[in-house]
Amino acid sequence: MDKSRLKNAIINAGNRNAALVIKNANIVNVFTEEIIHGDVAIRDGIIIGIGSYSGKEEIDADGAYLCPGLIDGHVHIESSMAHPSRFADCIIPKGTTTIIADPHEIANVCGTDGIQYMLDQTEWLPLSVFFMIPSCVPCTGFETSGAKIVAKDMEQFLSQPRVVGLGEVMDYVATANADGEMLDKIELFKNRPIDGHAPRLTGDSLKAYCTAGPETDHECMTFEEVKEKLALGMRIHLRIGSASRAVEDIMRSIAESNLPTNRIMLCTDDKHLEDINNEGHINYILRRAVANGIPAIKAIQMATINAATTYGLKRYGAIAPGYRADIVLFDNLTDFNPRLVLTNGMVFKPSPEAKMKPDPKIYNSVHIAPRKPECLKLQVNGKMPIIDLLPNELTTLLRYEEVPCENGLFVSDSKLLKLAVFERHHASGRFGLGIVRGIEIHNGAVASTVGHDSHNLVVAGDNDSDMLLAIDVLEECGGGYSVVSQGKVLARIPLPIAGLMSDAPLNKILEMQRKLLDALGSIGSWRSSDPFITLSFLALPVIPEVRLTDMGVFDVTQMKFIVDNQ
Amino acid sequence: MDKSRLKNAIINAGNRNAALVIKNANIVNVFTEEIIHGDVAIRDGIIIGIGSYSGKEEIDADGAYLCPGLIDGHVHIESSMAHPSRFADCIIPKGTTTIIADPHEIANVCGTDGIQYMLDQTEWLPLSVFFMIPSCVPCTGFETSGAKIVAKDMEQFLSQPRVVGLGEVMDYVATANADGEMLDKIELFKNRPIDGHAPRLTGDSLKAYCTAGPETDHECMTFEEVKEKLALGMRIHLRIGSASRAVEDIMRSIAESNLPTNRIMLCTDDKHLEDINNEGHINYILRRAVANGIPAIKAIQMATINAATTYGLKRYGAIAPGYRADIVLFDNLTDFNPRLVLTNGMVFKPSPEAKMKPDPKIYNSVHIAPRKPECLKLQVNGKMPIIDLLPNELTTLLRYEEVPCENGLFVSDSKLLKLAVFERHHASGRFGLGIVRGIEIHNGAVASTVGHDSHNLVVAGDNDSDMLLAIDVLEECGGGYSVVSQGKVLARIPLPIAGLMSDAPLNKILEMQRKLLDALGSIGSWRSSDPFITLSFLALPVIPEVRLTDMGVFDVTQMKFIVDNQ
Repeated sequence: MDKSRLKNAIINAGNRNAALVIKNANIVNVFTEEIIHGDVAIRDGIIIGIGSYSGKEEIDADGAYLCPGLIDGHVHIESSMAHPSRFADCIIPKGTTTIIADPHEIANVCGTDGIQYMLDQTEWLPLSVFFMIPSCVPCTGFETSGAKIVAKDMEQFLSQPRVVGLGEVMDYVATANADGEMLDKIELFKNRPIDGHAPRLTGDSLKAYCTAGPETDHECMTFEEVKEKLALGMRIHLRIGSASRAVEDIMRSIAESNLPTNRIMLCTDDKHLEDINNEGHINYILRRAVANGIPAIKAIQMATINAATTYGLKRYGAIAPGYRADIVLFDNLTDFNPRLVLTNGMVFKPSPEAKMKPDPKIYNSVHIAPRKPECLKLQVNGKMPIIDLLPNELTTLLRYEEVPCENGLFVSDSKLLKLAVFERHHASGRFGLGIVRGIEIHNGAVASTVGHDSHNLVVAGDNDSDMLLAIDVLEECGGGYSVVSQGKVLARIPLPIAGLMSDAPLNKILEMQRKLLDALGSIGSWRSSDPFITLSFLALPVIPEVRLTDMGVFDVTQMKFIVDNQ
Repeated sequence: MDKSRLKNAIINAGNRNAALVIKNANIVNVFTEEIIHGDVAIRDGIIIGIGSYSGKEEIDADGAYLCPGLIDGHVHIESSMAHPSRFADCIIPKGTTTIIADPHEIANVCGTDGIQYMLDQTEWLPLSVFFMIPSCVPCTGFETSGAKIVAKDMEQFLSQPRVVGLGEVMDYVATANADGEMLDKIELFKNRPIDGHAPRLTGDSLKAYCTAGPETDHECMTFEEVKEKLALGMRIHLRIGSASRAVEDIMRSIAESNLPTNRIMLCTDDKHLEDINNEGHINYILRRAVANGIPAIKAIQMATINAATTYGLKRYGAIAPGYRADIVLFDNLTDFNPRLVLTNGMVFKPSPEAKMKPDPKIYNSVHIAPRKPECLKLQVNGKMPIIDLLPNELTTLLRYEEVPCENGLFVSDSKLLKLAVFERHHASGRFGLGIVRGIEIHNGAVASTVGHDSHNLVVAGDNDSDMLLAIDVLEECGGGYSVVSQGKVLARIPLPIAGLMSDAPLNKILEMQRKLLDALGSIGSWRSSDPFITLSFLALPVIPEVRLTDMGVFDVTQMKFIVDNQ
């Protein structure tokens, strides 16, 4: 907030000189947990008073509920597949006015250039975007990323005003073992917020992890996990994204317990545009929280002031004098459908398209070595490790089973698919092969350059030639998603920004996504509610129990390769 | 916390290798508001686990309550009259292991040298001392301080690890009027905590003040004030020091209300050694909070994690892995008398005396111009302004009354005393004269170089010659307190450190203070519970309603001089 704006706001707070007044509202006070009927006065994008006001411009709230703009406490913009400005245009109408973004995905492709690109491309948005600097680039040593970021590389970002802390510390094994490189990063951010990521971690390992420094967790699957982590001083994000939805039981348990909620927040982590469009964003999590018995004001605190406090965002997360005029008007506190959203004191308008510029360092990121048709042949030796997808979860189970084969080579039966991950940053020619259950495809393949977290090319199919074609398509369009069947390209989504995001207009992205899902539906079915995320997470070697990287099949629980392709 | 210590703690948290274990305790968890029976394991001064542990050294808690070390959220060490190490030795046995110190007093005498002196003299203490950089040096333009600190002077402190924020913004008039110099300071600390100080401020003025940036207040006198300030986003300190005790009614109202308490903290602000010794420190406020109906765990949160959160003190304020092993063992959660106090994982021992060194820049701070006996003559013109002390409050009332006089000059009748404030930093010869009610002295005078906030020399008496002698005594001993009667020195406390603090041992300071109070008692009586503080605050032109500075009698409500001696 610049000084002359602040000065103006202070003086006008004292003399009741408002430029904009929202009249006749039920104003949610997140500090006292009260709802107060009155007006909110705004000047220069800053709230200057709550009470009885008149102003140059007036908006009649007609008794609707006025909440602080919602805060997504942990989100990867890249997972929307949309340029940050398109993402902003999608979530602001849902009431989210501030996000804590972790540009972990683009950093794994483009390194510090990717982080700087996201900083540059979010500076002029109506959405307030704060950044956590990715701590795990690469995520682990068990995959090949596009870049490596060490503590020293992070120093350049410390002085940037929208950089608040260290991104989710995913490598919990290295952390709990006091790995030197990880501790260097934690040391650099020791006076700032440090996000954690500790799925299923418990007992002594969790204590060691907490001792190291991570302070938040957004991976809790049970209420017991929430309680254990809260008791150890962690702050908890309740997450509902596109793929992970176990949180409703947790919400019910919180509602029934006496657990203090002031260290609990809400986040989406990874959520696609279509899902945001259909059901909402943080407002959807609010709706579910209230439906599961959490008092509305407690839920609103989770979505506003609790996150602002955790991430040290002064003047955010409340309707109070001196706070940024990010305000949402809801008809009621059960549906949380916004009637009106103000950011920085202005009624929301879509972002100016003119400022979005292609950056050659970020575009054209897909570099795959030439492939021979026989590269996808998978030898069968006794029981084979199967990556078994759990319905609607990011976690997988590791099973060993007899698989169909011909001439000693695995043959897909459309329920057990072949999966491959190709290194796509340095054209090294490295790739891993495996078998997955939970995706069904008949006579076709699907491929993606979105492959958490190194974003190598992931491809699944029931025949090698379609798999190879699906790869060719992505190589040609600079990354994205492709669906092919019997030698034909059924659908594709070009994602030229780091192979992760599109700069197309929102409707165009949504249309491409729908076409791709339709194409997928025409050749098979998925256990998960979201094929995009399911496919993308099959390569992430930090979520239990088993994954495939460009280096081979990886047992996350044991932290070692089962099948090492190197 | 240094990296090798942290590394050691992480590894040992994972393998349960504790150096010290406190066994069989009832451990207060400030995150979940639960009390858990178990052991606390410590290694290298860091808590590494809660559960069932054995260690090289063990302490049997025998079922006693284990709390995080208490935090004083706002304190001026100088008001104890003791060097920081003596102060630490006094408060740690009461359970306070961390303080947020505002070196406002020494800064008003010695400027940035004074702040640096306090940083240097607290580095080696078993007490954790964090600093807020004084924002009001001088406090106002209505008095003469020893130094002036502008925003630029503060920059040197920003990189010091124990400097956390901007000290109490006392000049609420300048702040609410968006005064440029004040906004420069607020701008410099815009991403850090900013303490407020807004006694009786309400309505639009308070909104303007909050808009400017101050985030805390420790001056609330009523529950309504607490509610108004909380609703505006301020965090509230409940203060019990030596002079201000209105807080018990507020505590009862909090206990009876549904007001969330996570933004409420405890502080002493100004408290003398004798009072700390007799009744306690933050543990005394806990005792009063619980006696007034606040649940013990909520009160303990106020005294620990709430303050740590407000001031961004990571790893402080809780018993959890990775947290600093500052721990207090209480027999019960009603009296809060510590049985044992650990700081940094070690049982408390008094500070090493050897590190305390006189600093010529800080010692010898008293410079008063020569005085003529007739300087204290006070002309009477009609009704005179009286500074009327309220019992047990810092606030005063302004009254206009006929006063006794002879030959047109005021004559004290022992209930209305003469009061003078002499500029004592630059030997300017400037002084103010006034009349005070609430101190009774017969045939004597009392003087002090502790005179908030500019710390000019304050003297009160019923005759001019004793007043002049009381001044002479302080000039001779480099500052402090003196009591004289009929030409004899009855008692004195030399305070060579900036005229504010003594480097003598605790018992010696306490003995001098007792003798001084006895001497005062032998010549008069005081409305206040603490003559030291009452006298020292008579010169502070930011607490309503009326004060005397070296420039004259000042109406705080109107912000102007009634009698201008210049």
